[in-house]
Amino acid sequence: MSSAGTVLAERRSQEGLGEAASRGFQAVLDSHLDALSAPAGLPVVICGMAGSRQGWMEAGYIDTPAELASIGPAATVVPGATRRIIILPGLASRAIDEPDVMRGEETQLLGAHLEFTGGSFYCMPGTHSKWVRMDGTRVKGFETFMTGELFATISSGTILKHSTGGEGPVDAHDPAFLTGVRDGWTRPEKTTHQLFAIRAGQLLHDYGQDEGRARLSGLLIGAECAGAGIRGGERVGLVASGALQRLYRTALSECGVHVHDIDADIAARRGLVEAWLAFAASKGELAKA
Amino acid sequence: MSSAGTVLAERRSQEGLGEAASRGFQAVLDSHLDALSAPAGLPVVICGMAGSRQGWMEAGYIDTPAELASIGPAATVVPGATRRIIILPGLASRAIDEPDVMRGEETQLLGAHLEFTGGSFYCMPGTHSKWVRMDGTRVKGFETFMTGELFATISSGTILKHSTGGEGPVDAHDPAFLTGVRDGWTRPEKTTHQLFAIRAGQLLHDYGQDEGRARLSGLLIGAECAGAGIRGGERVGLVASGALQRLYRTALSECGVHVHDIDADIAARRGLVEAWLAFAASKGELAKA
Repeated sequence: MSSAGTVLAERRSQEGLGEAASRGFQAVLDSHLDALSAPAGLPVVICGMAGSRQGWMEAGYIDTPAELASIGPAATVVPGATRRIIILPGLASRAIDEPDVMRGEETQLLGAHLEFTGGSFYCMPGTHSKWVRMDGTRVKGFETFMTGELFATISSGTILKHSTGGEGPVDAHDPAFLTGVRDGWTRPEKTTHQLFAIRAGQLLHDYGQDEGRARLSGLLIGAECAGAGIRGGERVGLVASGALQRLYRTALSECGVHVHDIDADIAARRGLVEAWLAFAASKGELAKA
Repeated sequence: MSSAGTVLAERRSQEGLGEAASRGFQAVLDSHLDALSAPAGLPVVICGMAGSRQGWMEAGYIDTPAELASIGPAATVVPGATRRIIILPGLASRAIDEPDVMRGEETQLLGAHLEFTGGSFYCMPGTHSKWVRMDGTRVKGFETFMTGELFATISSGTILKHSTGGEGPVDAHDPAFLTGVRDGWTRPEKTTHQLFAIRAGQLLHDYGQDEGRARLSGLLIGAECAGAGIRGGERVGLVASGALQRLYRTALSECGVHVHDIDADIAARRGLVEAWLAFAASKGELAKA
């Protein structure tokens, strides 16, 4: 990306944390930079699990409440690199009874907040969905919900695999998704009972697997909305893309939320550039940026 | 057992549905009867998954509301056997929006209700916990909660495996179990958020795996109590034994429930005998029983 945030070239890969750790993070990074013919001095900004305990270098957390602008300057510099390589910190809520962490989403949030003027409440769906409450440019607090991972695990690792056919796509327009959202949202305490009703529905009423998967997804997302405190009428920045964006947009609308769509990739890119500029400014390196 | 319900001899085995289906249900049964030197004419009463679609013979369901006394007479007779072999039906709640089934627990309930005079509310914990509401001897309705299976799947199949060390024993006196029960019961909508807090607690505060497992168990059982409508002050027949009995007794007491303990094995045996006597009476075979 240019320092103005324009995408000059892009590469994606399936190399996860484990593979990068075994092949060497620097080697994996260099292979991509070479493939992109990236200029030698191009700085590299990294966010997400590369900064975790199992990652390239532990980049720590900033404790909430936290200013978004503090993320860049708090980056960890990878020593001994031939170019500037920084790894951005995550955010942590250290409350003893309800601790929470995010790593990578803080950078998306940094970008998303630039896209959504006056945004104060964000939903960032995923394996571990994040709900963030803002006070101006300050992250007041956030909550993580294991919705994505529970959907994958329950649909493929429990008795419900017979009723869902395992993990798979969910149609946001499936009526079973919508009734699932409503039931999960209005009666979250019944969720682990409603899950079993998917099995019973297959046994007693021959409900299909697509329907079972849609209902499971709706129940979990609806319960997440209840847990996030959605009552209806809120303005929420939905930082997502693709199928997840369609599911959450439908679910949030079903719960009476006014959804402001923010593309997850655009938010991430914008956050990376913003973090780099703040880092460079904090080191007096902005002129060279 | 004698017709009076006295245990004359007992055998247990790990042969599950799959193994019995592949070796042949009759062969598996005969191997146990031979080992017990059971008299030739001894009738056999079977409940549980042997009566499911994948079992020996499908024994169907009785729809609720249902009289407990109707279970025996509705048994399915295994044809062509050299002795009387019956398989008891399950119970089903066929409501389109909230279907539910039980198979095997109905027989435990039959026995438990004989043990708990005036019992009107039962909790039968397990892989799929059942909560049953009675009106005299009539099953008004029941609800299943996937608590046991979710504990096993989440503790070993999600990111929480790092924070729980996988599936394992839970100490009912662990403070983390009690706070988990309270949090799950009072704020069930936060359950999938509280699950992730177990992971965050390990990362930020080095919470131990025993503590993580205890909290996970408490959260799920507490949320189950909320889902079952526990407000405090109810009289509940707890049909359980061993570690599960200790966990649920502690959890229910924490929620202000007056627990009436009923041993799960005693309930099952008493239910089997009661069902047999009702079946034999319905066929005019009681004198021979």
